[in-house]
Amino acid sequence: MNKELNMNEIVSICKMRGIIYPGSEIYGGLANSWDYGPIGVELKNNIKKVWWKKFVQESPYNVGIDSAILMNPKTWEASGHVGGFNDPLMDCKKCKTRYRADKLIEDYSFNKNEDIVVDGWDNQKMLDFINQHEIKCPNCGSFDYTDIRQFNLMFKTFQGVTEDSANEIFLRPETAQGIFVNFANIQRSSRKKIPFGIAQIGKSFRNEITPGNFIFRTREFEQMELEFFCKPGEDLEWFGYWKEFCKNWILDLGIKEENLRLRDHSDDELSHYSNATTDFEFKFPFGWGELWGIADRTDFDLKQHQSHSGKDLKYTDPITNEKYVPYCIEPSLGVDRVLLAFLCNGFEKEQIDEKDSRTVLKLHPALAPFKCAVLPLTKKLKDKALEVYGTLAKNFMVDYDEAGSIGKRYRRQDEIGTPYCITIDFDTLEDGTVTVRDRDTMEQVRISVDELVKHISDNIVY
Amino acid sequence: MNKELNMNEIVSICKMRGIIYPGSEIYGGLANSWDYGPIGVELKNNIKKVWWKKFVQESPYNVGIDSAILMNPKTWEASGHVGGFNDPLMDCKKCKTRYRADKLIEDYSFNKNEDIVVDGWDNQKMLDFINQHEIKCPNCGSFDYTDIRQFNLMFKTFQGVTEDSANEIFLRPETAQGIFVNFANIQRSSRKKIPFGIAQIGKSFRNEITPGNFIFRTREFEQMELEFFCKPGEDLEWFGYWKEFCKNWILDLGIKEENLRLRDHSDDELSHYSNATTDFEFKFPFGWGELWGIADRTDFDLKQHQSHSGKDLKYTDPITNEKYVPYCIEPSLGVDRVLLAFLCNGFEKEQIDEKDSRTVLKLHPALAPFKCAVLPLTKKLKDKALEVYGTLAKNFMVDYDEAGSIGKRYRRQDEIGTPYCITIDFDTLEDGTVTVRDRDTMEQVRISVDELVKHISDNIVY
Repeated sequence: MNKELNMNEIVSICKMRGIIYPGSEIYGGLANSWDYGPIGVELKNNIKKVWWKKFVQESPYNVGIDSAILMNPKTWEASGHVGGFNDPLMDCKKCKTRYRADKLIEDYSFNKNEDIVVDGWDNQKMLDFINQHEIKCPNCGSFDYTDIRQFNLMFKTFQGVTEDSANEIFLRPETAQGIFVNFANIQRSSRKKIPFGIAQIGKSFRNEITPGNFIFRTREFEQMELEFFCKPGEDLEWFGYWKEFCKNWILDLGIKEENLRLRDHSDDELSHYSNATTDFEFKFPFGWGELWGIADRTDFDLKQHQSHSGKDLKYTDPITNEKYVPYCIEPSLGVDRVLLAFLCNGFEKEQIDEKDSRTVLKLHPALAPFKCAVLPLTKKLKDKALEVYGTLAKNFMVDYDEAGSIGKRYRRQDEIGTPYCITIDFDTLEDGTVTVRDRDTMEQVRISVDELVKHISDNIVY
Repeated sequence: MNKELNMNEIVSICKMRGIIYPGSEIYGGLANSWDYGPIGVELKNNIKKVWWKKFVQESPYNVGIDSAILMNPKTWEASGHVGGFNDPLMDCKKCKTRYRADKLIEDYSFNKNEDIVVDGWDNQKMLDFINQHEIKCPNCGSFDYTDIRQFNLMFKTFQGVTEDSANEIFLRPETAQGIFVNFANIQRSSRKKIPFGIAQIGKSFRNEITPGNFIFRTREFEQMELEFFCKPGEDLEWFGYWKEFCKNWILDLGIKEENLRLRDHSDDELSHYSNATTDFEFKFPFGWGELWGIADRTDFDLKQHQSHSGKDLKYTDPITNEKYVPYCIEPSLGVDRVLLAFLCNGFEKEQIDEKDSRTVLKLHPALAPFKCAVLPLTKKLKDKALEVYGTLAKNFMVDYDEAGSIGKRYRRQDEIGTPYCITIDFDTLEDGTVTVRDRDTMEQVRISVDELVKHISDNIVY
């Protein structure tokens, strides 16, 4: 029987194996910040690589962009972030613990096994719910809160010498706006015709009051966003296209169907400008959590920027000469969050026989940090092993491990998801063959060194 | 005769072709911030890819990391950035223009064709120089400055609800410290033995008073850093190793020898903790500028963190059991800066014959944003062209262009450095062959569609 790992086990294995460490750990950390170690950085890079491959490289529609994190602050007035990007905060008057009112309600209902979605509620509605259900302070048990007040989530800083409001700028809370403000420049220079999309991968920052659940919600995070521009009226069709496209992408990479559910927003949950929104939710060990938001944002963003900047952001149809502000479909995915999903989805405790078990990280080969590991049976075989390593490493990421018994080294590679272990033994010196052991089946085959690159390459194609 | 492009021509072609746009342009920009367009993001990603390939993937010594931009502020006390990371500012009392004293001196000497390096000068020495040479305000011509005062270059922000000093954090001004604070975690989890290195690519931020020269100096920039740890006493040997390694990397990628010079720091220019430092300088259109700093930083950084954190950062030699704080060699390269170097190095105005000229971006194929472009001769060939595009795009980045004459399309591809143009004509429908035109020689060969992937792949190997 295979067993899934719980969050504590995942966090601990991540630290031990160099996947993810607590940020600034030697200084006692920094509230829920995390650093990707040698294994984690490869996994993260691979996720970004396979996303870019499907969403940009292979797509006849989409192009990429990499816009700056620091933007002209007018951007955030137009996008609504200056006015409306707030968390509803309330404090317990007794123990001074600070809560997000919406989280308080969601946690309460989660514990009651109810599924309440607070998105779109105003302060009064949240306050009423809390009072009606007498939701007690999870920390001290009392029921005595301050009023709800709004707290803006953007990190503020100052550019230039003086710290006055004229120099106030923000760390972007999302990558999307860097796409919208460049819409006209990109359309012009790429000469793309509607429908087309603009994709971006990059860091965003939100001053979350209650970050948590490991890398699920952090103040600093990385996004993979596509803004796909189409003709008004064709938006719902394209919304369906990208919903399907995203679902296939994530299932093809090994996310299990039972760990994924698609939740369409109901009318009262939809943002006022949205024609349709679907959340992809993943079953994390701590419950279902939002993974991917796909929204039909109509022409809201471009029109906002048009009116705030005074620039014409309309598109001219080259055949009909019709002018219009395009509608936009936005699939927005967090790199760190989907990485956590791949870890939770892939880690298994596997009972091999009555006495023996192993922990294995079942990752799609395209995501695996190392495509294979080279393991010399004894230190005497180091030269040959390094030679094999050198040849393989020209083609993909390879680990080299000479410490401990072969069995222990297999277990280590299993835990970081390496699809193939290559053992160099004394026969290798004689006949030029090696043992290749498969991570999932644990079966071993004997292969000539000359065929190794091709054998592995053929099995990691994406 | 081929001619190089000047900065204005490069900036203008970058905008027109979708390589680099001014940041937040529709809002009037944000002081020297830049966004990478569809072509620029591919070039930037390729630079990071080939760096990672040589410095991590193929290196038996090095592993990677991706640490957070936001770190515990004690990090910057230990690193010296809180106390010492300052720009020496002075204002012209007449016209109120603000200057960096060191830049004022360097620009003055550059205009006099002298080569003065101000690194390491204290305020008094700079003030004396300015007075002695009566360096006038470049803006208004008067000679009446305020005193020099120190301005810290770190961007400050606040984490959490209140903006008090307890919540004050900084945007990292360099990626290096994220490596040092993780030294023990990485050594333990990767079980690497000295000598080994830790590599990182990521954004850093410096509140520069005088950013400029396009993407040469920007407030937000991306770094590729390696911290290579070795045994004290073996540091100068490894310093030489990495100096050579870096030089080969950049020359192999096509930087011309005459555009590169290596400048060793003299004793009075060296930081107090450094045993040796070499600057790689590139000949930009605006003069020689620092490209790559390679420094032997001894055990300075780890010892600083050891004393500030109280954690033991010593390494234990597994054979001799000797304990020591490793020495460290740091090659530090700016992604944006080396990207600018590849552009300046690669752009050429080429006179083809008496009437005809072209602008071509001579990039190493591994760096080229598109490896090839598919060009249907007429719109009737669109289906076949898209079929060829689809096959190629599974393997590498491909452009598809159907607008304008073939000649004009060749010129467009030349300007963005595409090594191969593939023309689909009516013969393609008959015999399945296409024309492949080489960017540099402009020669054309006829090749079967079935051999295209291999033909291009073989020519872009890195």
